Amino acid sequence: MTKEEALYEFLIRLGDNALILGQRLGEWCGKAHQLESDIALTNVALDQIGQARLLLTEAGRIEGKGRTEDDLAYMRGEMDFRNNLLVEQDNGDFAHTIVRQYIFDVFQYHLLKGLQKSSNDFLKAYADKSIKEVTYHRSLSHDWMLRLGDGTELSHQKMQDALDDLWEYTGELFEMTEADDVLIAEGMIPKLSDIKKIWEEEVEATIQEATLKVPDTLGFMAYGSRKGIHSEYLGYILAEMQVLPRSMPDAKW
Amino acid sequence: MTKEEALYEFLIRLGDNALILGQRLGEWCGKAHQLESDIALTNVALDQIGQARLLLTEAGRIEGKGRTEDDLAYMRGEMDFRNNLLVEQDNGDFAHTIVRQYIFDVFQYHLLKGLQKSSNDFLKAYADKSIKEVTYHRSLSHDWMLRLGDGTELSHQKMQDALDDLWEYTGELFEMTEADDVLIAEGMIPKLSDIKKIWEEEVEATIQEATLKVPDTLGFMAYGSRKGIHSEYLGYILAEMQVLPRSMPDAKW
Repeated sequence: MTKEEALYEFLIRLGDNALILGQRLGEWCGKAHQLESDIALTNVALDQIGQARLLLTEAGRIEGKGRTEDDLAYMRGEMDFRNNLLVEQDNGDFAHTIVRQYIFDVFQYHLLKGLQKSSNDFLKAYADKSIKEVTYHRSLSHDWMLRLGDGTELSHQKMQDALDDLWEYTGELFEMTEADDVLIAEGMIPKLSDIKKIWEEEVEATIQEATLKVPDTLGFMAYGSRKGIHSEYLGYILAEMQVLPRSMPDAKW
Repeated sequence: MTKEEALYEFLIRLGDNALILGQRLGEWCGKAHQLESDIALTNVALDQIGQARLLLTEAGRIEGKGRTEDDLAYMRGEMDFRNNLLVEQDNGDFAHTIVRQYIFDVFQYHLLKGLQKSSNDFLKAYADKSIKEVTYHRSLSHDWMLRLGDGTELSHQKMQDALDDLWEYTGELFEMTEADDVLIAEGMIPKLSDIKKIWEEEVEATIQEATLKVPDTLGFMAYGSRKGIHSEYLGYILAEMQVLPRSMPDAKW
């Protein structure tokens, strides 16, 4: 595997996470329980789609086949997507959305912290630019974790259910492939196993502060996205996202 | 009609326009033909929902019955909404969305220009704050008018169809009621008939520059929203927007 191939894989992985999470959060636009939450979630969606644009544009450049951000977003099939299973999971109720978001925000935050030290100019600039917005996302979802986890009996139960449902998708965030090995050797990216330790410490502390329990998965974790194997949800997300550009592929009108 | 009643009606009219247009534009989130357009339309949606929050909060304050922005957004029925028929119209294709947006942006821009001279502190502050974002919205939709109107044969035809479909909803934007008379006498708001002249001049110039034709409606214009009479669309928008807060009215969880 060449350096370019490894970098392409890594950029697509990050870009797809941002794109698919942005799509999911965008579904809340106009449907949250308060105008304030509606705007907050949609702002996070826009930040993620903005990050996806940077990452997919760079992935296209590295690949060297002339594909644009739009080509990569709209013209790839499900098995070419490398987003984590976590971010494609259904919005569910507000508790599921918040738990999914918090788990991802902490992961993304520490990954960006690591990328700020990257030897790759693009990755460093991307991390420096995005860390500010992700710091805010993490603070927002952290506050909701506490407010709902340590809220009413009902909100507490909904949050615990969401944690129990989503926990099995956390292992995959840290799965390393050959691409990681190549890029780590170049000093371009941090080790996901290192990030896992910081992530666990922070997330478990918040879970306890929110009076919730860390789920016991008996060791079961879902894997697949590194090889393009996705849950039943991704196909529907892509169908909705891609139908317009695909039905007018030249988009000349 | 007291000054407070007139002001409440005017604030609700503006707030509902911003809220319902924001909802409609939010439907594009994740569904446009380019990532860039997707983000641009969603940003306009967020600006409008932000304006709605300011306006509905102030309307609740003036009404003096303790209703919040969320009460007014989620707990009123269709006949209590005062948004113009234009903004509740279906997104249709991209051409319909752009034409609806341009027509509204020019209207909103000149209304805000007038409100910047308001004797009412809130209206003046609201206009000063919002004119910047609306200036950008107008520039964005103006560019799309030219690009698509004076584009391919297909895009030209789609834009003309959209203009023909939506033109009948333009008259109502400028309909004045007793509330207008009361507030004009107080120096709080501009005359809509004055804004109509500036609007016509600007919109018709753009239509011609875009090589399109000003529709001939034979004098027919649709009216109704000033009295709470809406098209078939509003009920569906409200159903989707209101279902979550209404099903959990105390929102304590």
